[in-house]
Amino acid sequence: MKLASLKHGRDGRLVVVSDDLAWCADAGHIAPTLQAALDDWEAVEGALRNLATDLNHEAIPMMRFHEREAAAPLPRAYQWADGSAYVNHVALVRQARGAEMPETFWHDPLMYQGGSDGFLGPRDDIPLADEAWGCDLEAEVVVVTGDVPAGASREQALAAVRLVGLTNDVSLRNLIPGELAKGFGFFQSKPASAFSPVFVTPDSLGDAWADGKLHRALNVDLNGQPFGRAQAGEDMTFDFGTLIAHAAKTRALGAGTIIGSGTVSNRDANGGPGKPVAAGGVGYSCIAEVRMIETIEGGKPVTPFLKAGDTVRIWAEDERHHAIFGTIEQTVIAG
Amino acid sequence: MKLASLKHGRDGRLVVVSDDLAWCADAGHIAPTLQAALDDWEAVEGALRNLATDLNHEAIPMMRFHEREAAAPLPRAYQWADGSAYVNHVALVRQARGAEMPETFWHDPLMYQGGSDGFLGPRDDIPLADEAWGCDLEAEVVVVTGDVPAGASREQALAAVRLVGLTNDVSLRNLIPGELAKGFGFFQSKPASAFSPVFVTPDSLGDAWADGKLHRALNVDLNGQPFGRAQAGEDMTFDFGTLIAHAAKTRALGAGTIIGSGTVSNRDANGGPGKPVAAGGVGYSCIAEVRMIETIEGGKPVTPFLKAGDTVRIWAEDERHHAIFGTIEQTVIAG
Repeated sequence: MKLASLKHGRDGRLVVVSDDLAWCADAGHIAPTLQAALDDWEAVEGALRNLATDLNHEAIPMMRFHEREAAAPLPRAYQWADGSAYVNHVALVRQARGAEMPETFWHDPLMYQGGSDGFLGPRDDIPLADEAWGCDLEAEVVVVTGDVPAGASREQALAAVRLVGLTNDVSLRNLIPGELAKGFGFFQSKPASAFSPVFVTPDSLGDAWADGKLHRALNVDLNGQPFGRAQAGEDMTFDFGTLIAHAAKTRALGAGTIIGSGTVSNRDANGGPGKPVAAGGVGYSCIAEVRMIETIEGGKPVTPFLKAGDTVRIWAEDERHHAIFGTIEQTVIAG
Repeated sequence: MKLASLKHGRDGRLVVVSDDLAWCADAGHIAPTLQAALDDWEAVEGALRNLATDLNHEAIPMMRFHEREAAAPLPRAYQWADGSAYVNHVALVRQARGAEMPETFWHDPLMYQGGSDGFLGPRDDIPLADEAWGCDLEAEVVVVTGDVPAGASREQALAAVRLVGLTNDVSLRNLIPGELAKGFGFFQSKPASAFSPVFVTPDSLGDAWADGKLHRALNVDLNGQPFGRAQAGEDMTFDFGTLIAHAAKTRALGAGTIIGSGTVSNRDANGGPGKPVAAGGVGYSCIAEVRMIETIEGGKPVTPFLKAGDTVRIWAEDERHHAIFGTIEQTVIAG
């Protein structure tokens, strides 16, 4: 089952979307918003699935689904907690600035609390008031949970995964060092993230969802050129069950909590940093990573951060090369 | 005007509360929840104020208001961002562990993104799975904002303050050093916070609300004994306008954003650390602070962190010694 929120008010209007993303059907008679559906999932899931089946059989009135009319599936949420599960990425960050990475990072997930009061839709522009802030994309996989009790095990956590999707976790890289030095984590360095047009139930992913990971390539194009083709299922040190259980260690998680994987990152086949797509590698899921590799190899970064007019596309494909979650496609604008 | 949410479902049921906190009136015909009211404040504020006037004149059907039946005014929120505006408190933390505090901390606010997917009501127990986590109270002032545009000035930010209240920002002190060392800020160390039974509009505070600060003592009792009587209007390095503008520097804030002051803390009259209430001082708004002073003065902390059975009371009084926001009154329980 695939779900989306058409732009409408603060929380959107819930629709069920056909598997091929061409059509949708209003689900307002079942739940007005995706948050309302998640709040009452056990009661509404069956009716939503019946609607999805009817839609895929073209057995009900349906509307064209236009990704540009979609808000983030949760236009705002009560929790957005982003992990950093591809520890390879973290190791590269540290290496680029000549810092040791603590060995514990391989066992104890990094996770920060993100702002969730307003997300960008999949085709919304990325507003950037100051290019000196160092605007970056970060392509990630996310899951949305139901209620998770405090102290939940990895298995309980995995069973609570309701939906899977993608995000562009926009970051202001040049604000990060100052914020991390203060010790309180990210805040100004993390403006609104964007999410994929649809979120899907884990069962709809078939074999692509296994062991708490999405086993598909995460495609990133930058200004129309292939930039990243990393495999989200590889080099993910902490699966989503582990990430959710980490978040729930000392407190319950409310239904509709969004948990992010952190920037997807693959090592090169030889164990070293990944190569650009143009050089036969799988590329990168954020600009910071290529800049780190440029720094390690050439002493300084070459690829610039995002500026007004730059475009970012993020998507994942099924085995027939159809976009599973639709496509995040954003342009950076001044302001 | 004073507003509260009676326990009901995930988001409570909005009521207007009389100025003396004795009575309330259902506001469901105006807005079903406080979040709904904040989402549409310009349209509903007048009707809510009329209802409050009628209630205070006993001109409408009314119910007894029992603080134990109240949820947090926002039982869950889209954003909870907590500052650390009493820099005196931060300086003491650093002094206790022999670390220099950067001079910038006096000019650039500290703020972390807190979990907002589920808050404790004012009389809810504080569940504590492991006393070794070092459970602490933190008595703070909070404000709730309307929509704040990205890049808002301090003045715009102050004008967006809709409500004022109190919180007990429960913290797990012994988990903090490890989390701060990882650089991503607080997460497991910050379980659910509790909020005062009512939040009030700034105008209802009269002279007690000025310059973006609450000019009242923040009373804290621990196990029935006076523990803190710090003046929230003193030693607050960053007022709420500055804190909100800091939060909004790179992104808009959605209506219903809760901004916290951080633990209220006063210097002693001689400029040094505050003295206990029993010694004629204004005491402390968290246990960590008295432990720091014990460490500075005697080499080690003496006052233990919270354990099952301990009780915490937090409230502020008007000039007639009536609780303005009601009373947070919680007991720690195992589990």
